Amino acid sequence: MQDKVNIHEALETVKEHWSQKVIGEANGQMFKVAKGAGETKWHKHDDQDELFILYKGNLTIQLRGRNIELYEGDMFVVPKGIEHCPKAESEAEFLIAGINVTSNAAGGKPNVLPN
Amino acid sequence: MQDKVNIHEALETVKEHWSQKVIGEANGQMFKVAKGAGETKWHKHDDQDELFILYKGNLTIQLRGRNIELYEGDMFVVPKGIEHCPKAESEAEFLIAGINVTSNAAGGKPNVLPN
Repeated sequence: MQDKVNIHEALETVKEHWSQKVIGEANGQMFKVAKGAGETKWHKHDDQDELFILYKGNLTIQLRGRNIELYEGDMFVVPKGIEHCPKAESEAEFLIAGINVTSNAAGGKPNVLPN
Repeated sequence: MQDKVNIHEALETVKEHWSQKVIGEANGQMFKVAKGAGETKWHKHDDQDELFILYKGNLTIQLRGRNIELYEGDMFVVPKGIEHCPKAESEAEFLIAGINVTSNAAGGKPNVLPN
């Protein structure tokens, strides 16, 4: 059985932007914490929806044609196959639910990472 | 595409204890807000893991042989097939992720509901 995890404490351990840390699994879906600042590359996930829950700051989910502004407590699902580009003016902290880890090049992680 | 939802605002609309309100879906999994006070019946879900994220108050997940105490920001997964009985001394607010809605008799909802 998985131990309980505090999401705020897990977020404190994340040091790299746009890198996800898996903190739990349920029904084949992984729950991951991440921080972001700046923006990823435009990308899409053909195999999975990507659910965001904001914990701190402001995250803009740029979609083709419109932006979704997320603040603390907001939940939003980027459907599979939809191009998106998350952007944060200053550091944002969030939970992601999805089938697998997307913090790699295919997941839109930028080549040059902020310090 | 699903609209963004604020979890705190969604929780404010929940009037009945141990009744889940679906606020989103991703990868076949439903995300639901709920409030609880008192306790459910002892029960298990043979078809799904049940993931809890605490938003307010204290929720005790009673398992056979031990209790898991959840506070704000804590996440815990009750694995499928594991008997459990959530309990809250005073009102607790939480998010649940699972395959379907479990706020019915089979889901452990008590017969006599608190006002």
